Amino acid sequence: MLEIEVKSHCDDLELVEKTLREKGGRLIGVERQVDLYLSHPMRDFASTDEALRIRRDGEKASITYKGPKIDRETKTREELRVEVSSADDLELVFRRLGFGIGGRVEKERTTYSIGGVLVCLDKVEGLGDFVEMEYEGDDLVKGKEVIFSLMKALGLKGSERRSYLELLEKGKRPGQ
Amino acid sequence: MLEIEVKSHCDDLELVEKTLREKGGRLIGVERQVDLYLSHPMRDFASTDEALRIRRDGEKASITYKGPKIDRETKTREELRVEVSSADDLELVFRRLGFGIGGRVEKERTTYSIGGVLVCLDKVEGLGDFVEMEYEGDDLVKGKEVIFSLMKALGLKGSERRSYLELLEKGKRPGQ
Repeated sequence: MLEIEVKSHCDDLELVEKTLREKGGRLIGVERQVDLYLSHPMRDFASTDEALRIRRDGEKASITYKGPKIDRETKTREELRVEVSSADDLELVFRRLGFGIGGRVEKERTTYSIGGVLVCLDKVEGLGDFVEMEYEGDDLVKGKEVIFSLMKALGLKGSERRSYLELLEKGKRPGQ
Repeated sequence: MLEIEVKSHCDDLELVEKTLREKGGRLIGVERQVDLYLSHPMRDFASTDEALRIRRDGEKASITYKGPKIDRETKTREELRVEVSSADDLELVFRRLGFGIGGRVEKERTTYSIGGVLVCLDKVEGLGDFVEMEYEGDDLVKGKEVIFSLMKALGLKGSERRSYLELLEKGKRPGQ
């Protein structure tokens, strides 16, 4: 399955949340997510446009592989997600296999569901506020239509294709 | 935690099972286990004496990393085990990361518990019958004593330090 995802920077998360509620958006939950991005022992994920992430999500833990983006306007890419019984032990397995820690992203995520789209209101530590929209399905054309129409309704502009990790890394380098 | 493990080839599993029951062994379960051993993209696990295994165990699935053996007489080594929600998806994640399939082991495992030791009666496809004993704890000396005393009581001789995978691989090569 492909994941069609668009992310936009947002100056007023409260207004977006108010509009979502008015339009019938259903609150799914509020979570604190701590993501560890792993580096490959012989491959530069930044060059190959892949990502490997261990997520701690309250009591839950998962590992996600993201393949290279395959669409110019959105963040569409292959995504494989597996829930695991222990993030700590899995991190140790990957360290033993020669993987390193490429970065760390912490955020508070408030998730709504509306018209087949998951809308995540993200407060990202050290980066600011963003809205991420996900349409899960096989129809790429329809998914993009649904998402772009929703963005318009919520007053969101621009598609940020870079990950939070890339944006955080960029912030660390002076003069960029 | 260290895992202290001894494995012996066995010509009469039924006799061992009968003795186990007479001595108060408690049946834990009977399972069909299908193990996939992964190969590392830049490291030869056979040389480094490591193993990475995805196990399908009925409805359950897990990944296990085993470090190099650290004791001459037993199979004692670091073992990290994480339960996962999907063996298929996890296998795909590792394939995407450049890992390959190094081998496959299928067996029927009947597990008993007796005196702090797990005793597994294994019928391994293409290889024969084995008894594997595991003592889990921090006291390596005590664990070995307990296990060797149990082996004697069950009429088991010899410690096979090679894994089922190694034994299957050996069987494929002529003249060995």
